Amino acid sequence: MIADKLLQKIKEAGNPCVIGLDTDLSRIPPFLGKDTDAIRRFNFEIIDATSDLVPAVKIQIAFYEKHGSEGIKVFHETLKYAKKKGLIVITDGKRNDISSTADAYSCAHFKTFGCDFLTVNPYLGTDGLLPFISPEQGTFILVKTSNPSSGDFQDRMVELNEKEKKILKTDKAELHKVVALKVNELAQQNLGSSGYSSVGAVVGATYPEEAKVLRKLMPNSIFLVPGYGAQGGRAKDLLPCFNSDGLGAVINNSRGIICAWQRGDEKQYANAARDATEKMIEEVSGVLEKNK
Amino acid sequence: MIADKLLQKIKEAGNPCVIGLDTDLSRIPPFLGKDTDAIRRFNFEIIDATSDLVPAVKIQIAFYEKHGSEGIKVFHETLKYAKKKGLIVITDGKRNDISSTADAYSCAHFKTFGCDFLTVNPYLGTDGLLPFISPEQGTFILVKTSNPSSGDFQDRMVELNEKEKKILKTDKAELHKVVALKVNELAQQNLGSSGYSSVGAVVGATYPEEAKVLRKLMPNSIFLVPGYGAQGGRAKDLLPCFNSDGLGAVINNSRGIICAWQRGDEKQYANAARDATEKMIEEVSGVLEKNK
Repeated sequence: MIADKLLQKIKEAGNPCVIGLDTDLSRIPPFLGKDTDAIRRFNFEIIDATSDLVPAVKIQIAFYEKHGSEGIKVFHETLKYAKKKGLIVITDGKRNDISSTADAYSCAHFKTFGCDFLTVNPYLGTDGLLPFISPEQGTFILVKTSNPSSGDFQDRMVELNEKEKKILKTDKAELHKVVALKVNELAQQNLGSSGYSSVGAVVGATYPEEAKVLRKLMPNSIFLVPGYGAQGGRAKDLLPCFNSDGLGAVINNSRGIICAWQRGDEKQYANAARDATEKMIEEVSGVLEKNK
Repeated sequence: MIADKLLQKIKEAGNPCVIGLDTDLSRIPPFLGKDTDAIRRFNFEIIDATSDLVPAVKIQIAFYEKHGSEGIKVFHETLKYAKKKGLIVITDGKRNDISSTADAYSCAHFKTFGCDFLTVNPYLGTDGLLPFISPEQGTFILVKTSNPSSGDFQDRMVELNEKEKKILKTDKAELHKVVALKVNELAQQNLGSSGYSSVGAVVGATYPEEAKVLRKLMPNSIFLVPGYGAQGGRAKDLLPCFNSDGLGAVINNSRGIICAWQRGDEKQYANAARDATEKMIEEVSGVLEKNK
C-alpha cells in the first residue's frame, strides 16, 4: 500500500522533505552543457547527493516534455534512478481526462514510467479521478494551489448539497472545500494500515488559513505542499498542513535545492544541493519539533 | 493568427469535422502489430485517407504517453505528418500548471512539438492560463466537458462578483459559466480578423442546453466539441455549439472514425475511416444546412 510505504520512508528519513527536480536548462550549471544529457547528469548527481537525506523526489514532467521524446526519455531514466536509490517518486503531471483516456494516463505514469504518486487535476469530476486511484497508485489531487490566481475558481463560494451542509455546518463554502470533501470520500475507500490513504491532496503553503481547515476535512490524506521557498511559503506556514502526530504532509522544494549552486561555485552544485537540503530539513524539523 | 487559419481551413474543407487520433493498440487492426511502429503506420494511413476531407486532426497525447518516450516520438511524428498534409493540429493534453512550469508546457507543445491548438484545464485560474495564450497559440480551455461526472464541480452554483452579475443578470450561476466569462475575457484580447479568437473552449456535445447558453457567453471563441458519436452526442445536439453564421465550432470524432474498420475487413481500415468521415461530414453538414 503506497501511502504506508511513503509514511515508512518519512519515518526512516526523519523528515517529510521532497526535492523537486524541476530541471530546466536555465537552472543547471552552464559547464554541464545545454542538452538533455546535461539534465540527466545533473539529476543523477542531485539524487546521489541527497537520497540518504529525504524520503522522496518530485519530478515536474513539464520540464522534460519541453525537450520532446528525448526529454521524456531523461524523465523516465531519472525516475528509475530515483527509485533504484530507494526514493519514493512523485510525478507532478497534473494529468486529467475521462474513461479510456484517463486509463491511458494512469497506465503511462503508474505502469510505463512507474511513479509512486501522480498529481491529478479534479475539474472533470469523479469519473475523471477514479481511473487514477488504487491502493497501489498514489494520487495528490489539486485542492488549493499555491499561485496568486488560485482563488479565481478554487475560492468561489458554492452552494452545498445536503451531505456537504451537514459536514461543513454551513449552506455555502469555497469550491476547494467541496473538492476536499470529494477527495476525503475517495481517500476513505483507500486507507492503509498507517491510517493514511493513497488519495492525497495538493495544498499550497502560501495559504496557511485554508490549510488549517483542509487538514480537518481530509484527515487521512497526505498533503503535498508546494510553494515552499521560491513561491513565498515560509516554514511556520507549513504547520497547519500536518496532523497533530507531526505526519500527514510532504513539503516540496525545487529551486531552493537545485539552484543552490547559483550562490557559489557552479562545479559544487551537488554539494550545494545537499547543504540546501540539510538546511531545509533543519527548518522544517524545527517547526515540527516546536509544535510537539 | 491561428483562429483565422483554422476558419480558413474550415471554409476550404466545407465542414468543421475533426478526426481524433486516440490511437490505442486495442483500436488498430491486429495484423498491423502491437508496437509503436504499428501506431505510426496506422495514423499515417488514416491521415492519408482523410486529409483532403477535413480541416483538422486532434491527437490525444495520453495514448502515446502510455508508451513512454517511444510513444511520444510517434506522437510527434504523427503531428508533423498531419501538418505536412496541410491539416490544423489540435493536441488534446489538458495541460495545466503555473508560471515557469506552464511556460515549459507551452514551449513543449507549441514550439517543440508544434501543435496549432492545445486543450488546457482552467482549475488553477488566470495565471495558469496566460502562459498558454497568444494570437499564434490556439487554446481550447475546458469549460463544460462531455462526461457524466462533469457536473460534480463544473455545474456547482457559485456566487457571482458584480461584473459577472451584470453580464449574467443573476446573483449566482454554475461554475462553468464563470469559467466561460473568464475564457471570453481572454478571448477578447486575442481576436483575429475572422472575428474569432485564438482562445477557444471545450464544450461537450452531450449537454446541448448548456451549449446554447455558453455560445452566447463566448461569442468569439471557437468551440471544440468532443463526445460526438461514441460518447452519445447526436448530430442535432451539435447545433447550439455553432453561431448563426454556421461557424464557431469544430466537431471531433475519434472512435467513430479510427475504429470504423471493426465493422468490416481489417485490411481496409483506411477506406473504412474515409467512409466514416464522409458519413460524419454528411450528418454534420445536414444539420447545419437545415438551420440556414
